[in-house]
Amino acid sequence: MSLSSMPLGEIAELLSAELRGDPETEIRSLSTIHEAGPGAIAFISNRKYIPALGTTRASAVLVSPAVAAAHTGEGPALVVLDDPYMGFALLLTHWSYEPREVRGVDPRAIVEEGARLGAAVNVGAGAFVGAGAVLGDRVDLYPGAYVGAGAKIGDDTVLGPNCVVHHGCEVGARCAIYAGAVVGSDGFGFAPNLRTGLHQKIPQIGNVVIEDDVEVGANCTIDRAVLGETRIGQGTKLDNQVQVGHNAQLGRGCFIVAQVGISGTTVIGDGVTIAGQSGVAGHIKVGDGAVIGAQAGVHNDIPSGARVIGSPAIDGGLAKRAMAVFPKLPQLKRRVRELERRLDRLEPQGD
Amino acid sequence: MSLSSMPLGEIAELLSAELRGDPETEIRSLSTIHEAGPGAIAFISNRKYIPALGTTRASAVLVSPAVAAAHTGEGPALVVLDDPYMGFALLLTHWSYEPREVRGVDPRAIVEEGARLGAAVNVGAGAFVGAGAVLGDRVDLYPGAYVGAGAKIGDDTVLGPNCVVHHGCEVGARCAIYAGAVVGSDGFGFAPNLRTGLHQKIPQIGNVVIEDDVEVGANCTIDRAVLGETRIGQGTKLDNQVQVGHNAQLGRGCFIVAQVGISGTTVIGDGVTIAGQSGVAGHIKVGDGAVIGAQAGVHNDIPSGARVIGSPAIDGGLAKRAMAVFPKLPQLKRRVRELERRLDRLEPQGD
Amino acid sequence: MSLSSMPLGEIAELLSAELRGDPETEIRSLSTIHEAGPGAIAFISNRKYIPALGTTRASAVLVSPAVAAAHTGEGPALVVLDDPYMGFALLLTHWSYEPREVRGVDPRAIVEEGARLGAAVNVGAGAFVGAGAVLGDRVDLYPGAYVGAGAKIGDDTVLGPNCVVHHGCEVGARCAIYAGAVVGSDGFGFAPNLRTGLHQKIPQIGNVVIEDDVEVGANCTIDRAVLGETRIGQGTKLDNQVQVGHNAQLGRGCFIVAQVGISGTTVIGDGVTIAGQSGVAGHIKVGDGAVIGAQAGVHNDIPSGARVIGSPAIDGGLAKRAMAVFPKLPQLKRRVRELERRLDRLEPQGD
Repeated sequence: MSLSSMPLGEIAELLSAELRGDPETEIRSLSTIHEAGPGAIAFISNRKYIPALGTTRASAVLVSPAVAAAHTGEGPALVVLDDPYMGFALLLTHWSYEPREVRGVDPRAIVEEGARLGAAVNVGAGAFVGAGAVLGDRVDLYPGAYVGAGAKIGDDTVLGPNCVVHHGCEVGARCAIYAGAVVGSDGFGFAPNLRTGLHQKIPQIGNVVIEDDVEVGANCTIDRAVLGETRIGQGTKLDNQVQVGHNAQLGRGCFIVAQVGISGTTVIGDGVTIAGQSGVAGHIKVGDGAVIGAQAGVHNDIPSGARVIGSPAIDGGLAKRAMAVFPKLPQLKRRVRELERRLDRLEPQGD
Repeated sequence: MSLSSMPLGEIAELLSAELRGDPETEIRSLSTIHEAGPGAIAFISNRKYIPALGTTRASAVLVSPAVAAAHTGEGPALVVLDDPYMGFALLLTHWSYEPREVRGVDPRAIVEEGARLGAAVNVGAGAFVGAGAVLGDRVDLYPGAYVGAGAKIGDDTVLGPNCVVHHGCEVGARCAIYAGAVVGSDGFGFAPNLRTGLHQKIPQIGNVVIEDDVEVGANCTIDRAVLGETRIGQGTKLDNQVQVGHNAQLGRGCFIVAQVGISGTTVIGDGVTIAGQSGVAGHIKVGDGAVIGAQAGVHNDIPSGARVIGSPAIDGGLAKRAMAVFPKLPQLKRRVRELERRLDRLEPQGD
Repeated sequence: MSLSSMPLGEIAELLSAELRGDPETEIRSLSTIHEAGPGAIAFISNRKYIPALGTTRASAVLVSPAVAAAHTGEGPALVVLDDPYMGFALLLTHWSYEPREVRGVDPRAIVEEGARLGAAVNVGAGAFVGAGAVLGDRVDLYPGAYVGAGAKIGDDTVLGPNCVVHHGCEVGARCAIYAGAVVGSDGFGFAPNLRTGLHQKIPQIGNVVIEDDVEVGANCTIDRAVLGETRIGQGTKLDNQVQVGHNAQLGRGCFIVAQVGISGTTVIGDGVTIAGQSGVAGHIKVGDGAVIGAQAGVHNDIPSGARVIGSPAIDGGLAKRAMAVFPKLPQLKRRVRELERRLDRLEPQGD
């Protein structure tokens, strides 16, 4: 990212960080540690990139005190702060800031009668707002976004191109629903008809409630409740292609990585992290602060703070030790066979 | 769900159920067992909720004869029937019924010349119907739905917002294609070009045929056949984000849970259940009534009625026993090492 | 597929293949080996279909020299060539060829001021092209396709219905972005705020660069880089519902099967195959020509040419042998228990 010039001293001040280097150095771009050139500032949050401090062409690097201490010899100026990743986030936010443009409702948008629009909204060409829907102030609807009848969208929320918020669903303030995401589609509810062998649809008449500051990634799907609501708690972030079943309840500040599936009626606590491609079965509880590893399959309740991996998911430490033995199974089997042979030879015959 | 009032006796009659309680009790809402208040009717289909019978504030609960027998002491009125979940489905269907509104073709919809539309169709603003496409009677196209040239949509079928049915594909009667689903995209067919190391595209000129009473969940993808057809059998239900490869054949009354992937040219029998995030490899057969567990990886034919889990998938009973041993692998390895030491001590030296 | 008639001799000539049969035989359709009737030509690429040579009603079949040698007795004419699948691809391409129709920009398309359109483009009704976007020659935008401000689309590229290419992204020549795919949505970048327990969004200001001849399947998601670019190399093919995280780099000629997830900042070499539903963790390297099996979970660097399976992924041969032991774990545990009992009996007491 190219910027107008900013002296390093000002950057350190902005981040309340310690500067080890010349405060007059002009910074003109923000970059990754490997791609940075002269005039750029980069950051290190992953310790595996520490050696890059010796080779980077960046003029300055955001680092933690520990990384600063580990680095000896020549190198770029260091901006030392407790959380360099957060510093990078703040710096990037500061520099990438662009004032929001107010365009209003495009004449080719479709706003049904009875919809209520807040101040300074943007409704793009081809976007749809159904009867009785309510858009808060400064809401952005990209082209092709769909807001069903009676749905509510909070202030400062952005709905990406071709995303769908179905009728009666509620999205809080400062949310982002990315392109192609579908909020409030019918839950997967059928009663098996024992007579016909087919399935009787159960009407899904609840809704989805998304609290403030939530992000819903591209092509996610969050189903409406059969009765009541499916709920995503404040500040929770969903990566792309996440699936949330009907009546699931997600807590605050969760971090759900791409392609995760959360089944119906399951309750996820606050601050839970679920890594990519994991699945959580229905009707279970995951406690606050639990961490579920990638590709895990969770079939039972998980206590608060637990760390689980594997499918079926078990305690992370236990699972890692078992996974380490797994490749040695053929060898282990041979060793057991050999033990049996040795014992056969040792044991008295004709017994 | 709030309703106009209905006496409990009438509900029991509607469901041909036995009533244990006052037939004059007025029911004014339908609810889950935990959220129900006075005037509400709830249901229990999962036995783990039986204790809730003692604490629910519901006025009445739909239960099976077994649950009714297990419940002693105080509690709500009981509506006893063989399949309470089906009873709940019927009741909800009865109460949530709203007559379909006929709006016709929105002036901002795009209907190409040569498309044929049945009686009483709704085509929403921004929906697209290609040349030669045929919509049956009472078809609903939501805004942004796309029906390609020559595609056929059966009577009473609903196409959600921003879903896509590509050219030449056929969707039966009483189907639902939910938001963002894509039916009839090109199959993933390439011939590896040994000379260039790249891949030669194989034209995909077949189609997708979806029989009657099928549901295709939000953001599903069903690929068109290379030649011939990809087929989804009558009454089969696909949850969200399911992937079906080209030339796959799914039978009748299947139940395919979210994020499942079914590879090309695979044949799934009737009444098959595939739980969430499972994958079925290409060119194999899954017999009628088979049940494939969550996150399974099926690489070989599965006989009718079999239950498999695991990746690679094996018999469910076998897999569960093996999965129970898995966390004990480090311990098992230590036990083998210890056995070897003990035998070393026992065996004659210098042998 | 029905065709106008073509004599077998001409087909063999077109494919530079050896013909074992009557060159005058008229071929009128192309079909699968099982569905073929008289007048049809089919192919065999999978050896499991060799027995079908004895039963097919096809008039001719494309086969490899090895298959031709294995087949004795009666049967259809054989068109013998090294790569029958490639022959089939070429034949299908030859026969299914239809000249592209130029329709221009539909009056109901939305092309913002400052967008530049090449020669002979098609922009369908309801498609959107943002300010400063550039479409090359002969680009096809289907209805509902979205091209953000400043994005660039190369010559002869096709954007399917309701797909999204966000602002500033670049798509090469001869690419296909299928329906519902989202290119350039924000990467999943948040700095955990230790003070509030919530997450601070990191602006994602890089883009996505897709090189020439790439296919992106239906409902895929490819995130824009935080800084710099996410890149998909020339000729790489992505099946449906693939997820690519921010700053990932995919090489040339890769083959990524449905529902795969590739995490951020990971580097995939050239000619890599990743089978369905696999996941590759972030910040790792997969070497050229590596093959990753279905449902694998890759957490470490993979050397060039390696074949891995399993979650966590290990060497394929090793994994298969370990997977073969897995179902025998309960038995193995019993054998160890029995060995312990036998040793208990053998060892001197009171030791």
